[in-house]
Amino acid sequence: MPASIDLNSDLGEGFGTWTLGDDEAMLEVVTSANVACGFHAGDPNILRRVCAHAAKRGVVIGAQVSYRDLAGFGRRSMDVDPVTLTNDVLYQIAALDGFAKVAGTAVRYVKPHGALYNTVVHDARQAGAVVEAVLLYDRGLPLLGLPQSVLHSIAAQSGLRTVSEAFADRAYTPEGTLVPRDSPGAVLVDPREVADRMVQLLTTGVVGSSTGTEVAIKADSICLHGDTPGAVQMGRAVRDALTAAGITIRPFVNGAGAAPNDAQPAP
Amino acid sequence: MPASIDLNSDLGEGFGTWTLGDDEAMLEVVTSANVACGFHAGDPNILRRVCAHAAKRGVVIGAQVSYRDLAGFGRRSMDVDPVTLTNDVLYQIAALDGFAKVAGTAVRYVKPHGALYNTVVHDARQAGAVVEAVLLYDRGLPLLGLPQSVLHSIAAQSGLRTVSEAFADRAYTPEGTLVPRDSPGAVLVDPREVADRMVQLLTTGVVGSSTGTEVAIKADSICLHGDTPGAVQMGRAVRDALTAAGITIRPFVNGAGAAPNDAQPAP
Amino acid sequence: MPASIDLNSDLGEGFGTWTLGDDEAMLEVVTSANVACGFHAGDPNILRRVCAHAAKRGVVIGAQVSYRDLAGFGRRSMDVDPVTLTNDVLYQIAALDGFAKVAGTAVRYVKPHGALYNTVVHDARQAGAVVEAVLLYDRGLPLLGLPQSVLHSIAAQSGLRTVSEAFADRAYTPEGTLVPRDSPGAVLVDPREVADRMVQLLTTGVVGSSTGTEVAIKADSICLHGDTPGAVQMGRAVRDALTAAGITIRPFVNGAGAAPNDAQPAP
Amino acid sequence: MPASIDLNSDLGEGFGTWTLGDDEAMLEVVTSANVACGFHAGDPNILRRVCAHAAKRGVVIGAQVSYRDLAGFGRRSMDVDPVTLTNDVLYQIAALDGFAKVAGTAVRYVKPHGALYNTVVHDARQAGAVVEAVLLYDRGLPLLGLPQSVLHSIAAQSGLRTVSEAFADRAYTPEGTLVPRDSPGAVLVDPREVADRMVQLLTTGVVGSSTGTEVAIKADSICLHGDTPGAVQMGRAVRDALTAAGITIRPFVNGAGAAPNDAQPAP
Repeated sequence: MPASIDLNSDLGEGFGTWTLGDDEAMLEVVTSANVACGFHAGDPNILRRVCAHAAKRGVVIGAQVSYRDLAGFGRRSMDVDPVTLTNDVLYQIAALDGFAKVAGTAVRYVKPHGALYNTVVHDARQAGAVVEAVLLYDRGLPLLGLPQSVLHSIAAQSGLRTVSEAFADRAYTPEGTLVPRDSPGAVLVDPREVADRMVQLLTTGVVGSSTGTEVAIKADSICLHGDTPGAVQMGRAVRDALTAAGITIRPFVNGAGAAPNDAQPAP
Repeated sequence: MPASIDLNSDLGEGFGTWTLGDDEAMLEVVTSANVACGFHAGDPNILRRVCAHAAKRGVVIGAQVSYRDLAGFGRRSMDVDPVTLTNDVLYQIAALDGFAKVAGTAVRYVKPHGALYNTVVHDARQAGAVVEAVLLYDRGLPLLGLPQSVLHSIAAQSGLRTVSEAFADRAYTPEGTLVPRDSPGAVLVDPREVADRMVQLLTTGVVGSSTGTEVAIKADSICLHGDTPGAVQMGRAVRDALTAAGITIRPFVNGAGAAPNDAQPAP
Repeated sequence: MPASIDLNSDLGEGFGTWTLGDDEAMLEVVTSANVACGFHAGDPNILRRVCAHAAKRGVVIGAQVSYRDLAGFGRRSMDVDPVTLTNDVLYQIAALDGFAKVAGTAVRYVKPHGALYNTVVHDARQAGAVVEAVLLYDRGLPLLGLPQSVLHSIAAQSGLRTVSEAFADRAYTPEGTLVPRDSPGAVLVDPREVADRMVQLLTTGVVGSSTGTEVAIKADSICLHGDTPGAVQMGRAVRDALTAAGITIRPFVNGAGAAPNDAQPAP
Repeated sequence: MPASIDLNSDLGEGFGTWTLGDDEAMLEVVTSANVACGFHAGDPNILRRVCAHAAKRGVVIGAQVSYRDLAGFGRRSMDVDPVTLTNDVLYQIAALDGFAKVAGTAVRYVKPHGALYNTVVHDARQAGAVVEAVLLYDRGLPLLGLPQSVLHSIAAQSGLRTVSEAFADRAYTPEGTLVPRDSPGAVLVDPREVADRMVQLLTTGVVGSSTGTEVAIKADSICLHGDTPGAVQMGRAVRDALTAAGITIRPFVNGAGAAPNDAQPAP
C-alpha cells in the first residue's frame, strides 16, 4: 500500500461575476489542482488567480479540459469530431500553461472534465483525441482519470503516464465502478465516514462497496469535490485522517517547483 | 532607407463553419502572420491549421490579441479594466503559443486587433495592460503597432521592442495619421497604385498624403489586409514590386526557425 | 399528387462579420425561410434583415431552432436534458418572433436544425422536448421535418400539425431514408438532375433510389440547401422546372400575410 | 407625494450552473422584476423559472436589457453602433416576452442594465437606439431608468412612458446624482437607515444628500439590489417600513394580470 497519496480537486470553476466553491480554502487541502481552462468554466482572471495561489502553496497545476460548453458547464456529452477535440484540448492546456508560467510553474498533468471525463472512459475516438493533444503538447504530462478506462488504456499504449483516482465521496459497486449519481447512497455526505473510507483504502487497498462486500480500488490520487456545501470541511477531514494514519500527502507529480502542501500543514 | 521590409497580415479570422479571407494564399505573400486567437475570431482548428501552414512556409507567427467580442469581431471599443485586459491578452498569447509550439515554432510578437489596436494608440491604461501581459509572458516579444502610439511609448519605456507598421492600402494625412476609414479616398483599391506607394515609401521614406504633400512614415513592416476582395492580388502586387525594386522581403523577427518566405519566391 | 409545393431553405446563417450563403437571392426562390435564431448561427442584425426581406417578399418565416453551439454550427449532437432543450427552443422561437413581428408578420412554423434535426428523428426524449416548446409557445405552429420521424409522431399525438420535407439534392435509399452524407453519390450536384427528380416526385410521388428502384417519398415541402456553391442556381432550376411542370409553388402555411413568392415570379 | 410606490430589483442573473442572489425571496419583496435576458446573465432555464414565479406572485416582468457581454456581466461600456444595439435590445425583449407569455403574462417594461444603463444617461446615440427598439417592439412599454437622463428625454419625445427610479442603498449628491460607487459612503448598508430614507423620500420627496443638505428625488419606483449580501433583508426592511408608513406597494404598470404582491403580504 502506498505510504503517500495525492489529493486533487476541481478549481477555478467560476466565470466572470459568478463564483463556485472556495478555491483558496481548497488550495490549502489539495496537492493537485485541476484548473478549469475557460471552456466549461474559468476566465482569464480566475486562471491567473488560481495559478498564482496554487504556485504559492506548492500545489501542482493540472489542466481540467472540457467540451466547449459554458451554458452546460461541460456536463453534456457532445459528439465532437476527434480533430476538433484534440485542438480544443490543446487550446485549453496551452492557455492555462501561460498562466502557470506567469506564476513560475507549468501545467503538470491533464484531467478531462464532466461529460468528457465520462465519455473517454469508454469512447476510444474521443479518448484517442485527448491523448493526441497531450502527445502533441508535451508527452511528459500524465493523464489523471478513472482506472481501467479506455482513456488510460490508449494513453498507456501511447507511452503517456496514467494516474488513477478514487472518489472520496462516491459509493462504489462491487465491480469497482461508481454507483450512478442518481441512485440512493451514491454520494456520501458524512465527512467522518468519507475520511474513514479513504484511510481504509490507503491502508488496505479496499473499501466497502454498495452491497457491503469489499472492493479493491486503484488510487494514485483522491478526488475531493470542491463545489459542494461542506466541501472544504470534508476535504480537511480526509486530509487530517490520512495524515493521522501516517499517510504522506503529496503530489503524484514530482519536482513541482515550490514546497508542496504536505510541507505546509493546513491551519 | 531599409534594404528589407516585413509584410504582415491578419490571418486565421474565420470561426467554426465561417471563413474569412484566404489564409493559405496570404501565407505565400507575407513574412509575418497576425493570427487571431479566439477572442474576436479564430477557433482551435483554425489556429492549428494556420500555425502549421505558417511554420511550413517560414512565416513568423504573431498573436493578434483582441477584446473578447466574437459578435462584434473585436471592432467595438470596450472599457475593459486593465487587470482583466492583461489576463485576456495573456490567455490569447498562451493559447496561440501552444499551437505554434505544436507546429515547431513559437509566438514571436504581439499585435493588438481592431478596436483594441485603435484604443491603445491613445489610451495609456489599456496600452499599459497590453504591455504588462507581454512583460509577464515573454519580454522578448516585440509589439507590432502604430508608430508614435501610446502603446509603443509605454512598451519602449518598459524595455520591449516596438515594431512600426505602415498600411499599404490606406491614405495618410499630411500629419502622418490614417485618413479615417469613412472619408472619401481613405482606402486605396488599385494594386498598381498601392504597390508604387510602398516602393516609394521603402526607397524614399515618404508617401504622398491625402493633400498631395509628402509625408514621412516609419515602417518596419507593411500591413496587407487579408480579408478584402482582391486582397491576395494586392498583396502579391506589393511584394512583387518591392522585390523588383531590390527590397528584400523578410520578417522583422530574426531566427524564426524555418526558411522564411523571402527564400521561397511566391508562385 | 399535390398540384402545389412549398420550397424551404435555411437562411440567416451568418454571424457577426461572417456571412454564409446569399439570403436575399434565396428569398427569391423559396416560399418558406428557416431562419437561424442565434444558437448555431444568426445574430440580431441578421434576424432583423432576413425577417424584413422575407416579409417584403411574402416568404413565410419559420424558426430554425438548434442546440446552443456556435462553434460547431449546431452540427454536433448534444445530450441536452429535455427541460433545458424545451427552454432553449422557446427562447429561440420567441426571439425570432420579435423580429418577425417588427417585420409585420410572425413565426409560422418550427424546424430543428443540424444535429438536433437528426436526433429528433429517433430520440423521443429530445423530440418530446421540442414538441413541448411548441405546445407552450403556440400550438398553431407546425413542425417541419422528416416524415416518419419520432418528432412527427410525438407532434401528431400532441395535436400539432406536421409538415414533411424531401431533400432536393440528396439521394434516397430504397427504404426512403437519406443516403448518409459521406457515401458516394449522397449529394447530387447537377441542377438539371435535381430539378428533374423533384418534378418526378411531385408528379408521380416517387424518385429513383440509390439502387435504381423507385421509392415513394412524402413531401409537403422541398428543402433547398442555401449555403453550397451554386445553391441559388440549383434552387432556381428546381423552382423553374416545377413551375414549368404546372406545379404551384406556395407556402405550406396559409395566410402568411403579404403576397407569397409564387405571385412574384423570380427575375 | 405618492401614496404608493413600486419596488424593482434585478433578477434572473445567474447563468448555467452559476447562481446570483435569491430570486424567489426577492420576488416576495418587489412588485416589478427586471429579468436578465441572456446577454449579460440569464439563460433560458432561468428566464422560464423567474417568469413563472413572478407571474404566480403577480410581480410585473420587465426586460433588463444589456450589452452582449457575459464575461463582463454587461458592466463594461461598449461602443456598439445604434443599429446593432437596437437589434440586440429587440432580441432580448422578444426572447423574454416568450417566457412571460408561457407564464401567462407579458413583458411590461424595459430597463437597461449595467454599463448600458449608465451610458444611456448621457449618450444620445445609444439612448436613441434603445428607444427605437421599444418603439419597434411595443410602444406601450415604459422605460424604467434614471430621472433626467438622455434616455428618458428621448423616450418622452418619442411618446414612450418613462418611469423614474431612486436607489434605496445609494447616497445622493446635493445635485441629485448618485455618489460614485468607489467614493466612501456611496453604498448604504444599514437596512434601518435605508428603510428610513425611503420612507422620508416617499413622504416628503427629499432625502439627505452626501453633504447633509436635503435633495429632491423623483421616484416612481425604488430599486432594491438583489445580489448583495443581506439584499433580501434590506428589501424586506424597506417594504415593511413603507407599508408601516401607509405607503401602498404596487407596480407602476397597471393591470399586470394576476394579483400583485401588494395584495400578498410578505411572510
